[in-house]
Amino acid sequence: NLTVKSRRSEYFEPQHKFNTTNSFSPQQSLGALPRVFVGHSIYKGKAALTIEPKAPDFSPLDSGAYKLSKEGFVLLQFAPASGVRQYDWSRKQVFSLSVTEIGTLMGLGAKDSCEFFHDPNKGKRRFGFYLAGVQNKLLNVDESIYIPVSKAEFTVLVSAFNYILPFLLGWHAFANSINPEDSSRFNNSRSGADLEWSR
Amino acid sequence: NLTVKSRRSEYFEPQHKFNTTNSFSPQQSLGALPRVFVGHSIYKGKAALTIEPKAPDFSPLDSGAYKLSKEGFVLLQFAPASGVRQYDWSRKQVFSLSVTEIGTLMGLGAKDSCEFFHDPNKGKRRFGFYLAGVQNKLLNVDESIYIPVSKAEFTVLVSAFNYILPFLLGWHAFANSINPEDSSRFNNSRSGADLEWSR
Amino acid sequence: NLTVKSRRSEYFEPQHKFNTTNSFSPQQSLGALPRVFVGHSIYKGKAALTIEPKAPDFSPLDSGAYKLSKEGFVLLQFAPASGVRQYDWSRKQVFSLSVTEIGTLMGLGAKDSCEFFHDPNKGKRRFGFYLAGVQNKLLNVDESIYIPVSKAEFTVLVSAFNYILPFLLGWHAFANSINPEDSSRFNNSRSGADLEWSR
Amino acid sequence: NLTVKSRRSEYFEPQHKFNTTNSFSPQQSLGALPRVFVGHSIYKGKAALTIEPKAPDFSPLDSGAYKLSKEGFVLLQFAPASGVRQYDWSRKQVFSLSVTEIGTLMGLGAKDSCEFFHDPNKGKRRFGFYLAGVQNKLLNVDESIYIPVSKAEFTVLVSAFNYILPFLLGWHAFANSINPEDSSRFNNSRSGADLEWSR
Repeated sequence: NLTVKSRRSEYFEPQHKFNTTNSFSPQQSLGALPRVFVGHSIYKGKAALTIEPKAPDFSPLDSGAYKLSKEGFVLLQFAPASGVRQYDWSRKQVFSLSVTEIGTLMGLGAKDSCEFFHDPNKGKRRFGFYLAGVQNKLLNVDESIYIPVSKAEFTVLVSAFNYILPFLLGWHAFANSINPEDSSRFNNSRSGADLEWSR
Repeated sequence: NLTVKSRRSEYFEPQHKFNTTNSFSPQQSLGALPRVFVGHSIYKGKAALTIEPKAPDFSPLDSGAYKLSKEGFVLLQFAPASGVRQYDWSRKQVFSLSVTEIGTLMGLGAKDSCEFFHDPNKGKRRFGFYLAGVQNKLLNVDESIYIPVSKAEFTVLVSAFNYILPFLLGWHAFANSINPEDSSRFNNSRSGADLEWSR
Repeated sequence: NLTVKSRRSEYFEPQHKFNTTNSFSPQQSLGALPRVFVGHSIYKGKAALTIEPKAPDFSPLDSGAYKLSKEGFVLLQFAPASGVRQYDWSRKQVFSLSVTEIGTLMGLGAKDSCEFFHDPNKGKRRFGFYLAGVQNKLLNVDESIYIPVSKAEFTVLVSAFNYILPFLLGWHAFANSINPEDSSRFNNSRSGADLEWSR
Repeated sequence: NLTVKSRRSEYFEPQHKFNTTNSFSPQQSLGALPRVFVGHSIYKGKAALTIEPKAPDFSPLDSGAYKLSKEGFVLLQFAPASGVRQYDWSRKQVFSLSVTEIGTLMGLGAKDSCEFFHDPNKGKRRFGFYLAGVQNKLLNVDESIYIPVSKAEFTVLVSAFNYILPFLLGWHAFANSINPEDSSRFNNSRSGADLEWSR
């Protein structure tokens, strides 16, 4: 059993951050796919955890192509229970996992443990991710929100992370741009200098 | 070897439940992809098992975006054999696997076993998923339908489940909405407040 | 090291079988994606092996939806070497791997071995897939084509098989039809009878 | 811990090679997805490594279909540090990983090590990929750029490689062309000769 622990230090208001996203209006997306918010939640007796992927950023280049400018991430939101199957999201704690931190999680074996730290400004905001049995070592337990994560739930997370990771890296946008019809056009104009990696 | 066991307790008529899906008519789907029913079946001497993913639900938000409202699941249908390579689907038993139950299956090692229970209303309807050799412990074997699942068949299931799981979570809809051209538009209006997770 | 062995018994002419596929003409595919032939090849001193996925079949239903009618497969083509880096494809042997046989391959561990048999008509055509060191047990070695497959090549195959398997099952067509905009329409008309699997 | 080592022998100017790609202009891509450049970077104290997938090539066939003509690859670019969090990309070394070399990496266990060599023309340009602790055996360390790769970073790479590999093989183009509506058309004209692999 794995335990996700969130040590609370500072209040953090994420709605503020997403106001530009919320201002996205339907008429802007003519021809585009609609925005979709997908949070996978794990509800437990003392707290709930919602896990939500956040998109990478791209910048346009002069050539008309695009370039990844910032990798995506996964947002973790922890809310303490306020009653039976009720959670107080006004007291939620929000942390993000970078691509490498996701890799740490995905690589967790049955006997490993790991710890993530987030100290964005000056604060001591922290986030921990432990295998069960390890969290006793921590101080200030009263500030923390613990979410036990079962092996099955962890398997779901790893599968979802494995799926989403290439999107967070923007590799799907590269992959989607590979097109047999375009490729054969480029083919014709390639020179012998490409030979080095044509093995 | 893995054995999928379905213990029959109550009759269950799934057609009834899908009548809204069946009422989907072609003229409603102008410009949309057609519905596709895909059941992967395992046929054995005494029974057959069909495994079919079922889509998640989304709700529209006022902003024009969408939000996952219910995770998808996998439907298991068990039919007893009624002759050589013939199965009596009128006596079928239907159970669903939630995302976490799929995770339990995917995380099954060679020496693990697990058991799922479905008691939706008042009944004692149950569903078991055991590794071979364990099912002897069960009572009421005469009510049950057993499907032995070979290692190769289980590998296929795990691969298919690993594929479909992000769709059941709706993460594909998020992933498909990540678009370099949209992203660069959002980029420009983002404030420095995003820095915390820009690491 | 893994060795792919193909024991030759009967001549087999696959071009014949694909004439309907070859008759696919561009004007039929207005608005559709073009057919793409993708064979991953492993070239060795004594033989070459080409591995190519083949699409599943779907049938239309009266409702306008579609139903998987036949799972896809993977085609293996073995050609003996006829010179340095030259292979005699006129003497090729062709075998197909079903979804479950692909699962057998994907589940192969370092110490496992397995064997596939194909006896379609009356013949004794066979196909073997062995880990290195096992093939000595076989008779009629002179009729056979052996392809040693390195661990790295096998890793590539497993990754490619893991990718393609859901497509062979047709699950991608289901997955692609999951659409937030359609879903919310269906949502509204669903009855409480769905509760059993809404857990 | 894994260490990516790049032994520098010859200068290598990759911009030259991509000039045909750079000549891609927006007006050529009407209706097509834009090109997207996605490099995943690992920044360390002494060097940085950027990993970028490169598309396969396809050739048109007379039938209107396409055929994979060259597998894609992954480009590794190593740059030595020139200051704190600054890297001298003018001294970068560029190597490509073939699909099989990617398979070698993906199959790396905790105790394995492997080495790749690239000797394209006459030179002694080499590229090594070692597990930590092994690189001490190498000579000419002063010519080399070392990048230590943590387990988490390696997990990210393996996940990204596992994702991109089918695209490098072009299997995604095959997969995307599988369409229920097309399939049922082909279905009707198929003859009994297909039976061999319809098992």
